[in-house]
Amino acid sequence: MRELFEVRDYDGAGRIGKLRVPRADCTVETPALLPVVNPHVQTVSPATLESTFGAEILITNSYVLHGSEDLREPVLEQGVHELLDFSGAIMTDSGSFQLSEYGKIDVVTEEIIDFQHRIGSDIGTPVDIPTPPDVSREQATEELATTQERLELADSIDTGEMLVSAPIQGSTHLDLREQAARDAYETDLDLFPIGAVVPLMSEYRFEDLVDVVAAAKRGLGENAPVHLFGAGHPMMFALAAALGCDLFDSAAYALYARDGRYLTVRGTEHLEDLSYFPCECPVCREHTPKEVKNADETEQHRLLGEHNLSVSFGEIRRVRQAIKQGNLFELVEARARGHPAVLDGYRTLLDYTNQLEQTDPVSKDAFFYLSEDSARRPAVDRHHKRLDRVDAPDELWLTVGSPGEDGWRLVAPFGPVPPALSDVYPLTAELPERLDERAYSRAIEGVTRLAETNPETAITLVHDGWPERVLDSLPDDIDRKRLRRNSEE
Amino acid sequence: MRELFEVRDYDGAGRIGKLRVPRADCTVETPALLPVVNPHVQTVSPATLESTFGAEILITNSYVLHGSEDLREPVLEQGVHELLDFSGAIMTDSGSFQLSEYGKIDVVTEEIIDFQHRIGSDIGTPVDIPTPPDVSREQATEELATTQERLELADSIDTGEMLVSAPIQGSTHLDLREQAARDAYETDLDLFPIGAVVPLMSEYRFEDLVDVVAAAKRGLGENAPVHLFGAGHPMMFALAAALGCDLFDSAAYALYARDGRYLTVRGTEHLEDLSYFPCECPVCREHTPKEVKNADETEQHRLLGEHNLSVSFGEIRRVRQAIKQGNLFELVEARARGHPAVLDGYRTLLDYTNQLEQTDPVSKDAFFYLSEDSARRPAVDRHHKRLDRVDAPDELWLTVGSPGEDGWRLVAPFGPVPPALSDVYPLTAELPERLDERAYSRAIEGVTRLAETNPETAITLVHDGWPERVLDSLPDDIDRKRLRRNSEE
Repeated sequence: MRELFEVRDYDGAGRIGKLRVPRADCTVETPALLPVVNPHVQTVSPATLESTFGAEILITNSYVLHGSEDLREPVLEQGVHELLDFSGAIMTDSGSFQLSEYGKIDVVTEEIIDFQHRIGSDIGTPVDIPTPPDVSREQATEELATTQERLELADSIDTGEMLVSAPIQGSTHLDLREQAARDAYETDLDLFPIGAVVPLMSEYRFEDLVDVVAAAKRGLGENAPVHLFGAGHPMMFALAAALGCDLFDSAAYALYARDGRYLTVRGTEHLEDLSYFPCECPVCREHTPKEVKNADETEQHRLLGEHNLSVSFGEIRRVRQAIKQGNLFELVEARARGHPAVLDGYRTLLDYTNQLEQTDPVSKDAFFYLSEDSARRPAVDRHHKRLDRVDAPDELWLTVGSPGEDGWRLVAPFGPVPPALSDVYPLTAELPERLDERAYSRAIEGVTRLAETNPETAITLVHDGWPERVLDSLPDDIDRKRLRRNSEE
Repeated sequence: MRELFEVRDYDGAGRIGKLRVPRADCTVETPALLPVVNPHVQTVSPATLESTFGAEILITNSYVLHGSEDLREPVLEQGVHELLDFSGAIMTDSGSFQLSEYGKIDVVTEEIIDFQHRIGSDIGTPVDIPTPPDVSREQATEELATTQERLELADSIDTGEMLVSAPIQGSTHLDLREQAARDAYETDLDLFPIGAVVPLMSEYRFEDLVDVVAAAKRGLGENAPVHLFGAGHPMMFALAAALGCDLFDSAAYALYARDGRYLTVRGTEHLEDLSYFPCECPVCREHTPKEVKNADETEQHRLLGEHNLSVSFGEIRRVRQAIKQGNLFELVEARARGHPAVLDGYRTLLDYTNQLEQTDPVSKDAFFYLSEDSARRPAVDRHHKRLDRVDAPDELWLTVGSPGEDGWRLVAPFGPVPPALSDVYPLTAELPERLDERAYSRAIEGVTRLAETNPETAITLVHDGWPERVLDSLPDDIDRKRLRRNSEE
């Protein structure tokens, strides 16, 4: 029974949800960003994260607290909420990251889960094995077995109201990721981090990231809240959200700030390369890059950290608003133009049209055609599938002009538009005047599909100068005519 | 002698400049945004525009002041800077807008220029005739003659240190726009507003807008500061800046605010449709849409007005930073994914590659390939032109693999890469793994061009599975081989 997570709105596989966190007695709205708080070094205080940035949840590392001479006793005594001065939900990591970085750690799952419970964590994490990308199938399988044992062990421990996460591993072996997700979902654990993807993100391997996330999602039920572990760069929030990731965590805001790096939705800038602050946040409105360059180190880190948080939370709001309005794909289209690697991610996302379509709303506000990639969106695919169920008349004009009584509209990239569908999404699309060849090809695919399901229909296609080589792919028995526009007469 | 405007950096035809405004004894950095201040209704006070938003220049309407019973005497007495409480540069409009809206006004150029001078305006404007788009050639020509007379009249008036603008008209007749610009540039007037384009912008006719601006730019010298009159929506600042517009003015921030509309770089939202504020500005960080919906009218207008200004000035900073870093095209690419009409504008911009190339720096940071439209960027064109001046060896391998001693790299969308150009812009481009067909076609164009200038060279093209129909367009005497990647072996 997973009743903690309720999805309110969908767009593609992206969704707005409410995650109930019983021990914190609060509900977190998703997609959500969990700032990572280092208990020893706070670039921005948790109280500021809550009051200024609206953070409802954060993540800190229980392994660090467990091993800390100066913080272990205080956190056991006061609890992690009081220690950090944060009243929202607190998730704790287990030391798995340290395991992946240093090869060994000195706690085991029972011990760290118990410690997390004792310090008052709201969402605990077992010690899974973060198998890196590109390892052999054997290694990935073996380590996955250990991870699964630890999940089952964690599942068997009584943790009261504390939720416990079930990290999904499997390296870049997609079938293993899918199976790992299926196995994790079969436990009674609560939250599903997709683990060990940081190397993919830091190497800008967004194609592989999309493949891995899509695989994990296939193994999980729709009521599983999915956490993309270590995803803290706003340039990929929209892409990951469109795949159905609900939680992100950002150490980047602080780590980058301490390294003079400035986050934007289009990538990362170095403070030293900035002559102007390309942002609306209070830091960027009130300061020039020169002032921040000349600030003392602590102040510079705070200012950059606050900017990095502003843009990260701002992008989360943009993603939520886009899901609410049904234009998340349009947002991803824009973000894909931040970096060629994000474009690769978007183009890979569109390989999963069937998967995305399952939850994509049938009706939305408007479809914006924004690049040749738009022609591959799920809405185009769904329209083509609909054509399989349409009865065409014996004689049919498909025309880019006014169809009159006996014709249907012909609209790139969709293809034939049965009159009943003419005024509904996605046929209410906003299209550029200057269409690309892909738009026409996709329309021709639609025409071909209609012709196949209606072999008796005599189809005439009336275009206004569509590219010859696109028209050449039409079945031979479809007549074609060229419409002369008024301005050409 | 036009020494008031100095260009510091170029990207495409976009530039960062310094406009000296002698009467205000200040220098305005461009691209700049001039908030429009209505002397009677101030959604955001000029003092706030200056202190909070960093406005260096604003525009107000001298015709309104001239005809105002309550403001005419005060402004003559105190001067416009004191009346508005603004210490930066103040430009004044003449009533031409009212002329276009209401068909007649009750001042003439001599009178309004004199009035502007007397109230202390820093940049005055004659009464030109704002000919709307799509009028007959006769009407446009006739009205243009009147506009030109007024410019010459204004030019003949002694206005001391006050600069005077020379609006460029001509409707949607591109040759008239170009000639109008040439004539305006031949006067001694100082600033060049491209006039009567508001109807194009409000109808999202960005294709036509690009054509009109490109035509006007062809008639102007490079030292002419260009003002896109009435352009106040941040969704098109990057596009217009890439064409070489230096000044924008925004009444939109206030007009939209009073109508419950919320500006973004991707379009306009209605407050009532927002569940989350998709922005980082202080208003959007500190308030929810619900709070702003429930605020009293004055407060709601102020909050929306401040947000609208934040995003407008933020986009101006993004444009400047992009020019400085040489990635303005990349910014336009992203903005083109805000609305299909902006995509049309971008695709039209790329029709003017030759024009943009004249000022486009030969070397920049990195070329990002972000959509099939990237294949049409000036840098690709310039590389192809360079191939005309390259001597190829008698036998040449062009390969997507490692070229070795006897080969050259083959890189889509550029084509053949002579070794000397291999490590310089744009061949240091960041490309997606998943290229579109246009990238390959453009590369083939490059190969064909090299083959044409080196008819003696025996060329072998080594690809890794380029689309057949693209390869089919290669000249017959070019051998082609398929490279097998390791993973395929």
